[in-house]
Amino acid sequence: MIGTGLVAADRAQAAGSSQSRERQQAAAGSVKALVFDVFGTVVDWRSSVARDVNALAARKGLKVDGAGFADAWRALYAPSMDKVRTGGLPWTTLDDLHRMMLDRILPEFGLSGLSEAETAALNRAWHRLQPWPDAASGLARLKKQFIIAPLSNGNIALMANLAKYAGLPWDCILGAELVRHYKPDREVYQSAADFLRLDAADVMMVAAHLGDLRAARSVGLRTAFVARPLEYGPGRTADLAPDASVDMAAKDFNDLAARLNA
Amino acid sequence: MIGTGLVAADRAQAAGSSQSRERQQAAAGSVKALVFDVFGTVVDWRSSVARDVNALAARKGLKVDGAGFADAWRALYAPSMDKVRTGGLPWTTLDDLHRMMLDRILPEFGLSGLSEAETAALNRAWHRLQPWPDAASGLARLKKQFIIAPLSNGNIALMANLAKYAGLPWDCILGAELVRHYKPDREVYQSAADFLRLDAADVMMVAAHLGDLRAARSVGLRTAFVARPLEYGPGRTADLAPDASVDMAAKDFNDLAARLNA
Repeated sequence: MIGTGLVAADRAQAAGSSQSRERQQAAAGSVKALVFDVFGTVVDWRSSVARDVNALAARKGLKVDGAGFADAWRALYAPSMDKVRTGGLPWTTLDDLHRMMLDRILPEFGLSGLSEAETAALNRAWHRLQPWPDAASGLARLKKQFIIAPLSNGNIALMANLAKYAGLPWDCILGAELVRHYKPDREVYQSAADFLRLDAADVMMVAAHLGDLRAARSVGLRTAFVARPLEYGPGRTADLAPDASVDMAAKDFNDLAARLNA
Repeated sequence: MIGTGLVAADRAQAAGSSQSRERQQAAAGSVKALVFDVFGTVVDWRSSVARDVNALAARKGLKVDGAGFADAWRALYAPSMDKVRTGGLPWTTLDDLHRMMLDRILPEFGLSGLSEAETAALNRAWHRLQPWPDAASGLARLKKQFIIAPLSNGNIALMANLAKYAGLPWDCILGAELVRHYKPDREVYQSAADFLRLDAADVMMVAAHLGDLRAARSVGLRTAFVARPLEYGPGRTADLAPDASVDMAAKDFNDLAARLNA
């Protein structure tokens, strides 16, 4: 598993250095703010949710596949937001969407007997996610030179609690809730530049997901790719290397800081 | 001037201890987040703006009363926001209101010859305000135990740049721009609880202005008063001591932290 990660990271780095040096320098030149995808890019949601599920199951004397539970929960993520994006649901925060998804999967894992308090506490597993090992130190370094903010689908309370838990030193919290749109709606990306009163080209979106970066690029943001090959556990095949939507590719957040001279 | 400050602070502290001990303990009991007025409460806008105006005047070889300029600029603050609050102006950020006010007062101080770049830079004086001496250390202490956020009329970019300049370690930025209402509209105070997903009674508003605290209290927030007797220079008579709208009164942010056991 560690081997897979290193190989994929090396591949990403190699691909990163194949981005033209000119393009990377042009991208870095005017950047004043960095905005980050969070779930998967900054924090390792899968092993963290699995840990909380396994701990709960142990307390209840049950046997549950924590990682499978995390995967099942996350599998409902995009479809739930799509319901909001297409008008099938009115604006609903991610905390509330997480709860709707959770209520659906609890019975599938033999956990329908949880109390309301236990269920609510489990829903807050998304407020207690471990950062990737480089995330907090890389952000602290980037913060000295840039405005740094999450640009996540997570609501403000979720992002604020998560930042406290994981030691993420954001300057402010941007993202879906402020404009009541979910990524990849263009309103979210555009709002980052608008709220910071910067030109889109002076804001760089950092993500481990190429779809996120493509959407950011379509409104004029700069883009930086950081591969997180273990986001979905071992054996991942998508989003291992940058593509044409990427201005800069970095091995991790400290490497990103170095490439941005921070 | 320093004497005035100390006397007023002592008076505020004495008045604070006359708030019933039970009320202070009840107020502190369930508080999970502290939200702060910023201009005047966290930062000393008057001497900071005066400093920037004086520096600009010196560069231009002009003689300008910096403190008088700051006072004249600030005098247009409430009337400008009132225009937005009553529908005379559409939603306009404080950065843009500051610029409209600035354009009005520049000629009055013999500064109508500034270039656009000089005027824009001067408008950003509000992004470079000195914190009161206790503010950054008190906030750092409070942050360990509470979510801390500005609940200001300043827009996100202004608050984020100011926090970086003054070393204010906010967990997130709340306030007027997120709901497109200016304080004392109730929507702003209510939004603090809503965005943080807390009961109003679990959020404490901290301000040096009793009007702000009265409005916060009217939507159910807890209130803490910190006197800033020198906000408008020497000789201030308003807002020197807490009144019935105040749950807790503190001498400064470190004293507030002590009272909240942080």
